[in-house]
Amino acid sequence: MKWLKIQAKASNKAIEEQALAHQAELTKPPGSLGRLESIATEIAGLQGVKKPSLHQVMIRVFAADHGAVEEGISAFPQVVTGEMVKNFAAEGAAITVLASSLHADFGVINLGTVNELPELSKVQDQRIAPGTQNFCSQAAMSSEQLEQALVAGQAVVIDAMANAAQLFIGGEMGIGNTTSASALASAILNLPASDLIGRGTGVDDEGIKRKQHVVEQALKLHNLDNNSLDVDIVECLRCVGGFEIAGLVGAYIASAQAGIVVLVDGFISSVAALVAVRINSSIRPWLYFSHQSAEAGHARVLEALEAEPLLALNMRLGEASGAAMAAPIMQMACRLHAQMATFESAGVSES
Amino acid sequence: MKWLKIQAKASNKAIEEQALAHQAELTKPPGSLGRLESIATEIAGLQGVKKPSLHQVMIRVFAADHGAVEEGISAFPQVVTGEMVKNFAAEGAAITVLASSLHADFGVINLGTVNELPELSKVQDQRIAPGTQNFCSQAAMSSEQLEQALVAGQAVVIDAMANAAQLFIGGEMGIGNTTSASALASAILNLPASDLIGRGTGVDDEGIKRKQHVVEQALKLHNLDNNSLDVDIVECLRCVGGFEIAGLVGAYIASAQAGIVVLVDGFISSVAALVAVRINSSIRPWLYFSHQSAEAGHARVLEALEAEPLLALNMRLGEASGAAMAAPIMQMACRLHAQMATFESAGVSES
Repeated sequence: MKWLKIQAKASNKAIEEQALAHQAELTKPPGSLGRLESIATEIAGLQGVKKPSLHQVMIRVFAADHGAVEEGISAFPQVVTGEMVKNFAAEGAAITVLASSLHADFGVINLGTVNELPELSKVQDQRIAPGTQNFCSQAAMSSEQLEQALVAGQAVVIDAMANAAQLFIGGEMGIGNTTSASALASAILNLPASDLIGRGTGVDDEGIKRKQHVVEQALKLHNLDNNSLDVDIVECLRCVGGFEIAGLVGAYIASAQAGIVVLVDGFISSVAALVAVRINSSIRPWLYFSHQSAEAGHARVLEALEAEPLLALNMRLGEASGAAMAAPIMQMACRLHAQMATFESAGVSES
Repeated sequence: MKWLKIQAKASNKAIEEQALAHQAELTKPPGSLGRLESIATEIAGLQGVKKPSLHQVMIRVFAADHGAVEEGISAFPQVVTGEMVKNFAAEGAAITVLASSLHADFGVINLGTVNELPELSKVQDQRIAPGTQNFCSQAAMSSEQLEQALVAGQAVVIDAMANAAQLFIGGEMGIGNTTSASALASAILNLPASDLIGRGTGVDDEGIKRKQHVVEQALKLHNLDNNSLDVDIVECLRCVGGFEIAGLVGAYIASAQAGIVVLVDGFISSVAALVAVRINSSIRPWLYFSHQSAEAGHARVLEALEAEPLLALNMRLGEASGAAMAAPIMQMACRLHAQMATFESAGVSES
């Protein structure tokens, strides 16, 4: 697992300077495109070209089940994970509608639904196990299983490179995974579970209390309830994470190492990003955060990452849907930077 | 000008109810698409179809000059209005890059640049005068001129209907028009000029003071500095507005009357929307607000309209650029609503 620590590709600061100078020449008052300007110039530096592009989008949704669901933490039955994978294959889900809108390269990596699934279009069967173990009684994964999940994430990026992807979007599907993500965030940020637990896909007040109790129990069992400074991030991921979350962690790290810009989705993906950054802080400049979700803990996680999300539409679906919504903003920022006329070329007077 | 008061097309509440029921059947936890859900169901009601679409976008930028520029209120020389119209024609401006990205029907209506312009692609020459009069010494427009500008806005919507536009985006280009918009907002909202004046396209602290003084002077001259309840909105628009702002007012009202959804741009466009709503409150449900701009007074205007903008990217360019950035959100909301599978059709278990 030494690859996790390999430095991310460095941004080319000279090119970023050139891009900044180019921005200042475009036919608009300086600064008037707001955040679109910094997005374009940063991505120029990251991609190492004066006029960057995020036209080629790759979306991969990691799917897996969670043993902890037997604690009654989800409003939906566990079988829904597999059913939704089938729905992705049939292009009936939110993310598949959005992926088609973006003309994105879309796929699903099944890292461990409870049930085996038939062969499905756009779905890679890479089941590690029929779901993780219940982290209230033992570690969610073995070390070998964790490595498999992380490497599955890395493999996605190898695919992305082969397909010349310019923007990587990861998503997740896994009934019960807001609880797993809350446990990770609680341990890493040293915050009480109550600060991080939300309704997920729709539990009631009772459900929230149950999720909170489950997280507290799990952190105690795995000795993760002490002090964030002492937390071994990889071990934490193994004990209370999920296959799909680990897949995202591997993909985010590998993407930054490969020099592919990442657009992070909502709460669960942001927790995966937090884990990834704590494992390898050099990847941080490659991560853009798409939206502030309605999930309670998301704001805390974004804060810890010093992330400013692009959208706030009160979404809380996951699947990479929030990231897909934000992708046009990133793409348009690059297109404006590349295609607008300069004051000189257009014969427009400056201020 | 009686047409200004004609009621907007009514939303079909029965269809909206059907759309709400349809939303509840889609393969996602109820409410998990946040604002995208209410956008889709509202637009279903407005368009009167269970599965609405905003695929066909029409963008029209109204351009005109302002006599008050001689008071030294702008960081850019007045000639830039005409130069930017040429830049629109050459597709070198921010809005033309974005319009092409959206495959939108784009055009410019020249309602009064100081200089006559040569024939230009996509630009309609409808110059009312070489700019408005300086509203610090007299009314910006005559009644006839105001009517011409309003009717030019209405004519755009007739064009939109003929082209089966589903989403109308108006924009403006006019050196000095943040001052005109600030004067309108100050009079209508009965707020001190200092609450509404911002940097526009880039004036310094001195410039802000000058803009503030100009607004105060103009409101006093036209007896608009008393009490918002007494303000005659149309007269206010005539005295301190601009041709391009009046064009937007006419277009917004006509669009709602024609049953075409409107996406409003930034500060100046929002002031035009405020004027339009105060003239004819029935149009309000047809107006969506794209972004919270960096311009100081924008928040106050949005508040008065009870508008929740979709984006906050710190933009302050105008030209319809913020609305073009937000258009994909509206479009994707409709596409998700129309194309996602239902729990039943996809065989996904409910909570």
